[in-house]
Amino acid sequence: MIVKKLAIVGAGLIGGSFALALKQAGAVGEVLGVGRNPASLDAAIGRGLIDRVADWAAAGQADCIFLAMPVGDTESVLSALLPHLKPGAIITDAGSTKGNVIAAARAVLTTRFNDFVPGHPIAGSEQSGPLAARADLYEGKKVVLTPEPDTRADALATVQALWVAAGSQVETLDAALHDRIFAAVSHLPHLAAFALVDELAGRADSDTFFRFAASGFRDFTRIAGSSPEMWRDIAMANRPALLTEIDAYLGALQAMRQAVAEKDAEALLDMFLRARAARENWMKTQDV
Amino acid sequence: MIVKKLAIVGAGLIGGSFALALKQAGAVGEVLGVGRNPASLDAAIGRGLIDRVADWAAAGQADCIFLAMPVGDTESVLSALLPHLKPGAIITDAGSTKGNVIAAARAVLTTRFNDFVPGHPIAGSEQSGPLAARADLYEGKKVVLTPEPDTRADALATVQALWVAAGSQVETLDAALHDRIFAAVSHLPHLAAFALVDELAGRADSDTFFRFAASGFRDFTRIAGSSPEMWRDIAMANRPALLTEIDAYLGALQAMRQAVAEKDAEALLDMFLRARAARENWMKTQDV
Repeated sequence: MIVKKLAIVGAGLIGGSFALALKQAGAVGEVLGVGRNPASLDAAIGRGLIDRVADWAAAGQADCIFLAMPVGDTESVLSALLPHLKPGAIITDAGSTKGNVIAAARAVLTTRFNDFVPGHPIAGSEQSGPLAARADLYEGKKVVLTPEPDTRADALATVQALWVAAGSQVETLDAALHDRIFAAVSHLPHLAAFALVDELAGRADSDTFFRFAASGFRDFTRIAGSSPEMWRDIAMANRPALLTEIDAYLGALQAMRQAVAEKDAEALLDMFLRARAARENWMKTQDV
Repeated sequence: MIVKKLAIVGAGLIGGSFALALKQAGAVGEVLGVGRNPASLDAAIGRGLIDRVADWAAAGQADCIFLAMPVGDTESVLSALLPHLKPGAIITDAGSTKGNVIAAARAVLTTRFNDFVPGHPIAGSEQSGPLAARADLYEGKKVVLTPEPDTRADALATVQALWVAAGSQVETLDAALHDRIFAAVSHLPHLAAFALVDELAGRADSDTFFRFAASGFRDFTRIAGSSPEMWRDIAMANRPALLTEIDAYLGALQAMRQAVAEKDAEALLDMFLRARAARENWMKTQDV
């Protein structure tokens, strides 16, 4: 057993899957659940994700508190938790952006900030909620931790051990680099998928178009089925890096437009060949 | 049996799957294969996609000739075939663009143009070649035929019957509308996926980014694994409609960029909500 008492804030897909994996691995004793939605918490108990519902006072007595609610709520959750936080309790999170979470945690936790281990599991689904939770969600997936210079080494070690017990590969990155990387490989593609569907949906004759959309469209836009609220928060939280990536993408699309407009078949083929080769190389390194 | 002798030009995924489905349905007698690559034709014979290899003279004696090579080769293939075309032989194709194929067919076939039935099966894979062919590739998929006013009614009826025998749902559309629709729901998404991967691959530190790309990236970019040559041809063949779609998409991305830049969380959420709702509605109507 790595921690006796774990509290998860947000008993949905991310929090619930973490709890389930750790329970199955025997890495945790009791699991408490904190959340705003009683129906969700009931479902989490029903599915065995959490043992009981807790308030902030009870959650603060846990050995480790896992934040798995929308990143936009980090500040308010930490503010509610801080007065009840027992000495030595570790806090970690699963937010998709790290710079803003670290800033919020530093501002609220002040002298207790060194007990906070910023984290981001690279796993998920366009589904959400306790019913979507799975013990194997993190199996073989990367988890990025972005400790700060003042993060307690033993807190970091405990959080690493929990993720390893959940089946993950743990990596550490500088938070700013993390945010740049995920703006490019995750946040921008989500916005690009939402933009494509929204543009099409806004047409008066959109039915005519959707009627003939097929599997390529389905896969390209799968991530446009993701939680709008979560992605709004992520886009707001990672604005500077995301703007850089949107601009890079707009530039790439403009270059492609130019090749099409100028009938430059060779330039177009070069882009397509480079893209396919890069994707094939990437796929070889992946187990996704 | 619908046609005694079928010739397929291009015995790869599209042609081979058509032949295989029709053989299994008992809809064709002998299947001839025409192609430039002897190894591919050997593989097509080995997999039972075609019964024998044919030259243009032999292919011209078939009752129906199915064009399943890159659309860019339509003119040269029809020119080679025309001198050998027996009276009453029907030609049909599987090109992803229709306006340019019809123009090429009309220019080459002249008085025999009424024997040409333009078609586009909405099925495929990022894989290609005879080894990727499957008897069920078209099962339950849409096939769009875009007959012209002078297309022979009985030629159209025969091609419809073949596709129905292959398991497809046949729809007819005006060629120009077809090209507009597929520019939006297929050609643009392919370019957008190629552009995203190419932009990332062009960075000096691209490995750092690819290393953390996960399942969302994989699905968004799946179609960037498609044939670069085929997509160059499609982009060139459907230029005007594609440029219109690229511009519409650039506009949608610019609007999203503006919402991010101006911290307009509400506008962003509205776009995401609309996109998700539209995609969910679309998915309900689909079996993709």
